[in-house]
Amino acid sequence: MEKITIIGAGAMGSALTTPLIENGNEVRLWGTELDGHIIDELRKGNNHPKHKYPLLKEAKLFKVDELEQAMEGSRYVIMAITSDALGMIFDRVVPYLKEDSIVATVSKGFDYDKEGEIVILPEILKEKLPNDLKSIPIVAVGGPCKANEVLYRSPTCVVYASEDMAASKKFKELIATEVYNVKTDDDIIGTEICAAMKNAYAVSLGMAEGYKGIKGLTHNNTKSALFTIATEEMDLFATAMGGSAKSVYGLPGSGDLEVTGEAGRNRILGEVVGEGMKSSMAIQKMQDEDITVEGYPAIKFGYNLVKNLDEKGKIDIKRLPLLTALYEILYQDAPCYETIQKVLNDYCNS
Amino acid sequence: MEKITIIGAGAMGSALTTPLIENGNEVRLWGTELDGHIIDELRKGNNHPKHKYPLLKEAKLFKVDELEQAMEGSRYVIMAITSDALGMIFDRVVPYLKEDSIVATVSKGFDYDKEGEIVILPEILKEKLPNDLKSIPIVAVGGPCKANEVLYRSPTCVVYASEDMAASKKFKELIATEVYNVKTDDDIIGTEICAAMKNAYAVSLGMAEGYKGIKGLTHNNTKSALFTIATEEMDLFATAMGGSAKSVYGLPGSGDLEVTGEAGRNRILGEVVGEGMKSSMAIQKMQDEDITVEGYPAIKFGYNLVKNLDEKGKIDIKRLPLLTALYEILYQDAPCYETIQKVLNDYCNS
Repeated sequence: MEKITIIGAGAMGSALTTPLIENGNEVRLWGTELDGHIIDELRKGNNHPKHKYPLLKEAKLFKVDELEQAMEGSRYVIMAITSDALGMIFDRVVPYLKEDSIVATVSKGFDYDKEGEIVILPEILKEKLPNDLKSIPIVAVGGPCKANEVLYRSPTCVVYASEDMAASKKFKELIATEVYNVKTDDDIIGTEICAAMKNAYAVSLGMAEGYKGIKGLTHNNTKSALFTIATEEMDLFATAMGGSAKSVYGLPGSGDLEVTGEAGRNRILGEVVGEGMKSSMAIQKMQDEDITVEGYPAIKFGYNLVKNLDEKGKIDIKRLPLLTALYEILYQDAPCYETIQKVLNDYCNS
Repeated sequence: MEKITIIGAGAMGSALTTPLIENGNEVRLWGTELDGHIIDELRKGNNHPKHKYPLLKEAKLFKVDELEQAMEGSRYVIMAITSDALGMIFDRVVPYLKEDSIVATVSKGFDYDKEGEIVILPEILKEKLPNDLKSIPIVAVGGPCKANEVLYRSPTCVVYASEDMAASKKFKELIATEVYNVKTDDDIIGTEICAAMKNAYAVSLGMAEGYKGIKGLTHNNTKSALFTIATEEMDLFATAMGGSAKSVYGLPGSGDLEVTGEAGRNRILGEVVGEGMKSSMAIQKMQDEDITVEGYPAIKFGYNLVKNLDEKGKIDIKRLPLLTALYEILYQDAPCYETIQKVLNDYCNS
């Protein structure tokens, strides 16, 4: 039995308590200041407000001011925080880490490092570690995984990736069950690029779904073509960053894109725009309703990072017309249908 | 303007009249003995009975006894016949072919050649060609393409693959429009293996959809994991046959699997079995209702072909546990949920 602390009581963090507890571990779930009501509900024995499903009663619950207790004697940490707050929250966790700690992260996206460069999230965690703890391994979690289905025990396959394979394997040992299946991998870069970019590209799949609203007819062919183009662009992107194409065509890339394109907020943003709403209006509406759509910032981060890589000669941005189109549609109000149609034309004629 | 004859007035054959006519070609659509009522309806100016959508009025329509007229002066032929009848119908077309003919095929699947070996469909066409016409190039069509959407003009990307790139390019010239986009490729083997096997694997995606019926809960994670495993198995299969992995991770493989997993009869067969109906009963029911599900024979053909390749040392069948599971579930009534769950376990632990 090991002690594991999950940082963040949102959908995914909470769901991971189940396989960890089923493996006989002591699991602490710590909620941020935004999760207070979640912890309150769970302490009352109610369903998790996000999944509408109960957690196992063995999960130990901690509120924002109980981080010390949540971390006491805990060697393993899972960061389950939205990408924009990950670094800030990790700053609070670092004082409780020890030399033999291992940190996993289920957060997905990009952020700016101290030098203002766009980086994948494990880099944000790494730079927050003090010198004497720089050897703590970071494990990135990828692959198709809807949180509620982890609670429901739907058979799932995920990837735990780290430069330090022993760390990936240790986490697999802690968390893998007969339904929550874990593949270990050393390609943290490819896994993270896919984790972030599948949200971006899922917006385009939503657009194809939305076309029914303006044309009255399905666009499944368009959606599948976009799916293919998306994976090929993630391949170029991930390999330019030093990652592996295998992750892109495996669980973290095409697997996760498949599930993300089926439902969720990224797809809904795409659908609304595909149905004809001006992007700037769709975004404004989402912001007014305080809805976070990870794919929206991922499109901008991804586009700008690819532009930087292009300037350094590491990638040819012209070979990523779909990412460019998504940027132009969502940030510059380019016409959705025509812009996407042109991506398909160019894909077949290049 | 060129003359093109489409053999088979089913959903796909009929749909292809549209891009060909829009490019200014003279297009003849010939119906087999099974398509008589379709040609009758179309001649009356009614909707195509399968798509419930009209064809362009320029399409020239021919009934089963008018093959000679349909082929007169036609250099280009598109075979759009179900896989089990392809060879038989092609026998009737061969007398009208000339040295400079090009034959494309949108039929998908496997069949036995004269020696009783399981082969991809272009091989069936090739062996039917007399010696003086052996140089006629065969072009295989792959990629995500629902026929009705070709009629609707939903933007689509397909692949026309041939060992003879000039033949692929010629067909692209004839048929590509601003919405029916054509990519040319020389990988006819990979394209055909994907075209056939995506129907087989789509049955497994349907199973994951069907689990909701017995468990009351979605299994999107399972579906996406199966999607990933399916593409990786198609990679092993296609490359063992001499095809290219690029086709598998491109439009013919993951692109076509995506669209096939969204809807259609292959998925429905999987859903019914996933919901708990015994496979033998589901198959019997389909046969009673005279419903053809291409994925069903493709699972058996694919499994047996892989077994042959395994015996020749060209592939290790143990690395295709999903295909094996599909065979066991559909042909030996193995329990669906448990067998699929084990595929996911093994995938992550091998």
